[in-house]
Amino acid sequence: MRHTYSVWVVGGDQRQARLAELLAAAGHTVYTFALEGAGPLDGVEARTELEQAGQGDCVILPLPALGEGGTLNAPLSPSTYAICDILSAMGSGPVVCAGRVEPALFALADGLGVTLHDYAAREEFAVANAVPTAEGALQLAMEELPVTLHGSRALVIGYGRLGRALAPRLSALGARVTVAARKWSDLAWVRAHGWEAEHSGQLRGWLCAYDLIINTVPAPILDEGCLSDLKEGCLVLDLASKPGGVDFEAARRLGVSAIWALSLPGKVAPVTAGVIVRDTVYHILDELGV
Amino acid sequence: MRHTYSVWVVGGDQRQARLAELLAAAGHTVYTFALEGAGPLDGVEARTELEQAGQGDCVILPLPALGEGGTLNAPLSPSTYAICDILSAMGSGPVVCAGRVEPALFALADGLGVTLHDYAAREEFAVANAVPTAEGALQLAMEELPVTLHGSRALVIGYGRLGRALAPRLSALGARVTVAARKWSDLAWVRAHGWEAEHSGQLRGWLCAYDLIINTVPAPILDEGCLSDLKEGCLVLDLASKPGGVDFEAARRLGVSAIWALSLPGKVAPVTAGVIVRDTVYHILDELGV
Amino acid sequence: MRHTYSVWVVGGDQRQARLAELLAAAGHTVYTFALEGAGPLDGVEARTELEQAGQGDCVILPLPALGEGGTLNAPLSPSTYAICDILSAMGSGPVVCAGRVEPALFALADGLGVTLHDYAAREEFAVANAVPTAEGALQLAMEELPVTLHGSRALVIGYGRLGRALAPRLSALGARVTVAARKWSDLAWVRAHGWEAEHSGQLRGWLCAYDLIINTVPAPILDEGCLSDLKEGCLVLDLASKPGGVDFEAARRLGVSAIWALSLPGKVAPVTAGVIVRDTVYHILDELGV
Amino acid sequence: MRHTYSVWVVGGDQRQARLAELLAAAGHTVYTFALEGAGPLDGVEARTELEQAGQGDCVILPLPALGEGGTLNAPLSPSTYAICDILSAMGSGPVVCAGRVEPALFALADGLGVTLHDYAAREEFAVANAVPTAEGALQLAMEELPVTLHGSRALVIGYGRLGRALAPRLSALGARVTVAARKWSDLAWVRAHGWEAEHSGQLRGWLCAYDLIINTVPAPILDEGCLSDLKEGCLVLDLASKPGGVDFEAARRLGVSAIWALSLPGKVAPVTAGVIVRDTVYHILDELGV
Repeated sequence: MRHTYSVWVVGGDQRQARLAELLAAAGHTVYTFALEGAGPLDGVEARTELEQAGQGDCVILPLPALGEGGTLNAPLSPSTYAICDILSAMGSGPVVCAGRVEPALFALADGLGVTLHDYAAREEFAVANAVPTAEGALQLAMEELPVTLHGSRALVIGYGRLGRALAPRLSALGARVTVAARKWSDLAWVRAHGWEAEHSGQLRGWLCAYDLIINTVPAPILDEGCLSDLKEGCLVLDLASKPGGVDFEAARRLGVSAIWALSLPGKVAPVTAGVIVRDTVYHILDELGV
Repeated sequence: MRHTYSVWVVGGDQRQARLAELLAAAGHTVYTFALEGAGPLDGVEARTELEQAGQGDCVILPLPALGEGGTLNAPLSPSTYAICDILSAMGSGPVVCAGRVEPALFALADGLGVTLHDYAAREEFAVANAVPTAEGALQLAMEELPVTLHGSRALVIGYGRLGRALAPRLSALGARVTVAARKWSDLAWVRAHGWEAEHSGQLRGWLCAYDLIINTVPAPILDEGCLSDLKEGCLVLDLASKPGGVDFEAARRLGVSAIWALSLPGKVAPVTAGVIVRDTVYHILDELGV
Repeated sequence: MRHTYSVWVVGGDQRQARLAELLAAAGHTVYTFALEGAGPLDGVEARTELEQAGQGDCVILPLPALGEGGTLNAPLSPSTYAICDILSAMGSGPVVCAGRVEPALFALADGLGVTLHDYAAREEFAVANAVPTAEGALQLAMEELPVTLHGSRALVIGYGRLGRALAPRLSALGARVTVAARKWSDLAWVRAHGWEAEHSGQLRGWLCAYDLIINTVPAPILDEGCLSDLKEGCLVLDLASKPGGVDFEAARRLGVSAIWALSLPGKVAPVTAGVIVRDTVYHILDELGV
Repeated sequence: MRHTYSVWVVGGDQRQARLAELLAAAGHTVYTFALEGAGPLDGVEARTELEQAGQGDCVILPLPALGEGGTLNAPLSPSTYAICDILSAMGSGPVVCAGRVEPALFALADGLGVTLHDYAAREEFAVANAVPTAEGALQLAMEELPVTLHGSRALVIGYGRLGRALAPRLSALGARVTVAARKWSDLAWVRAHGWEAEHSGQLRGWLCAYDLIINTVPAPILDEGCLSDLKEGCLVLDLASKPGGVDFEAARRLGVSAIWALSLPGKVAPVTAGVIVRDTVYHILDELGV
């Protein structure tokens, strides 16, 4: 991996703006396009044409790359750009990175001779984002609960990346943590960390003691039956991507306080979110030997 | 200590309301007075007269007990009561507890034959409140910073109760923690916990690396010179009681983001704050052999 | 899963003896065979014949089940038993569990109509044993090093089960922890926990600062070149199963203190090791619906 | 404080030897006397006469300074020296530091015109030594117990320096920790850290659940009555200085495994123990403005 690159940061929101500044601060030559609303960025040159992007080393498209109706996702730009025009401008020169690329977009890019590298599909990207997601969930819980996390009883449902980031943080703040998971080996890990372990298939009837329940599993787990078990005042946070894991309709009927919190990293820590994109793009460049 | 008491909760805000409910849930007979605005409380009888308070085992006045102009501090009541009328109604029967009692109020009570027990002056009360204060500070920092606490560099100034509650929490969330203190033995404790230690007398010139600075010392430490050293975007939280430790006037001039956060427990965790009053009152009763 | 079983604990060492006592204490009817040297065990009936084992619910053979030359592994018994005689006595009635079963033994049992269930091959068994292994490694490091773990610099090579159990323990005791791993996602986890991350392929030349190096990878990583980089007094622990990861011959030549520590759970915590076998056997019974 | 000094390290054991090497490594000019048995030390000049010590900046005597019958404590020297001869050689030039100085020795030194500075009497010295003491206790517990600390139930008696160093370490390793203390404010701290709190005056009858009990209070707490409550196999460690807190005679009668572990830092981590003396001497020099 070389030390400095010429990088184009194209479209996106504050996360992309912060990313551009971070790359400039690291000594790279950075151009932006379709980020006008972010204002002047330190060390970054804003361009109104993409013409020279094809001569850059790397182009970074946002997460997701695609906006509505085949456009570039560019909420900070007053203009609208067809994604195919954007891709056409790249040619085969630079490494083109984008976040959460769907099959149709891969195919479109391919047809235009552009190979897309999806940074959001990489495991290390997801792992790194578990940290700001977990902090965002703690912040929400602190804001909503009338008790401290210290001394509270908290249930984390699921022991994937989010569960692994959440449980130690809750525990370190003094909550009594239970993790519900399905696999014996996950339950063994939960116990190895010193937390209580429950089978996620056997939650009904065992939920009445918690002050806080955080779901991370995208499957219908907290249904009406479970929700009616909850102690008065219990807060439910759902961090699972669609379709989520909570019956929000039932929660409303039952008067249960339930919040569906998505895309926390960009909201609670945009600079950190930019750092994570930057590091993942570095890994892509490193592996490509650019 | 007996198992159940007759307790009067008189005046105060949501913390007192929660306290009344907590005492009722523990099996005590609980009456409230001058808490009308809290609405009906579970298991608690609201009274409009204090006459029978003298026959109770314990009366709990708010923190602080005294409102403006010699009145009872009773923001949830539509009426105004002279504190001397309140105290006169107690007689010498019940144990009368109050928060943050000033010498004049002690003297006044004495003259009326009432011995006041200041729960807020007890060390265990202050220690227990360090937890909700620390959580409140974390919440504020998470809300204000564009980076995660994980990976940030945080400075805690002072290693009294608040410093001791803050440093492990910041560290557990992944911040690189430095604690500034004055005594060699405090610095030894800081190192024994694995954090960086700095002399609080030698901060000037060493502040440019922090993302977050939390002051807990009520003395003018972060003056204009220190504040002008800070890295752009550094957040300053001042948890010190009056006169505080930050020159907020200078911070405004320099564009430094500085927040003076006082009385966090009652604001961020009123139920926990009520639990702490309850437990401290239990200790007082236990020591008095009531 | 039923509440009580009739269980035969056959052969093995102190771990099997403790297992028998633990099962008896949980209310099961427990018989032992070929464990004479363990002496009388609480609540357990020692048998000198296996005849009735076929009527039991479950038979637990040791880890490994096989001793030298086709015999039962039974170091606490004065007698020697051919493993095929042992298996023949079971018949098809009980669930027969054994530890670390090699293909030849599976085949032999199959021929005798016995289905072997290898508890040591299950992920949750390996996870749970990572804890006593990690504690054993801490104990060794504390015994050997002239400095405290607190304040020391420790390198953990590998981020599998052992690495995940070791790093948080070292860190919690105040060591500055670096973890070397190969995958970007593992390195992301290492950073998410707040430890330093290094590529395990790039260790040569970067090893001179460590006081303690713990290898968990069964591949030749710490070769003569690496070992000659080490700081004087650095302790090397190798927890990797054969062939291990350290060139012990070179370590001896170079005067590097290196210890190959295998099978720690049974040595440092035989009761805990017994608990882990018990729990894993419970999972097997539960899944079989016995 | 200047950058380099001329320091004499006189008498003592391996801790003093390591101290001499540490000071030499830091760039000071270091002479030893009466440390012959430690062999040649890196960067250090061994002297057979004390004549020139009076021209040094600092002299460091061991902990304790006094051996039997008015001699210098010098177990590594073949010779015997009267402490008054040693002190006489200093004159009033250097800063003379010594560990655990009794009133008679202060008086003797005073009479010879030498002001002794007791580094062991300083709070930061005691705090820093709590870390190697706590690690030594963990090591002992790991060596003696047949279960892992993870998952065990541990009681720490006393919440002074040792209790504060022990409880977080035990907890971090996965033990369920209870701390017994006498003061409400200490109990509040214990709860603020998330551990169970018990009154140390009410232990009798509540001791049957622990796998490990570590006493830190130098008063007769674990008497015969308490010891007969213990669960079979419970390990008792007494870290309290004389007279200790355990009735060892009764423990032997009752078959309770009890160990009185004193002076752990020098035994388990002599280099760290030397670092702590060095740093404390630095503080003394700094405060004297030498």
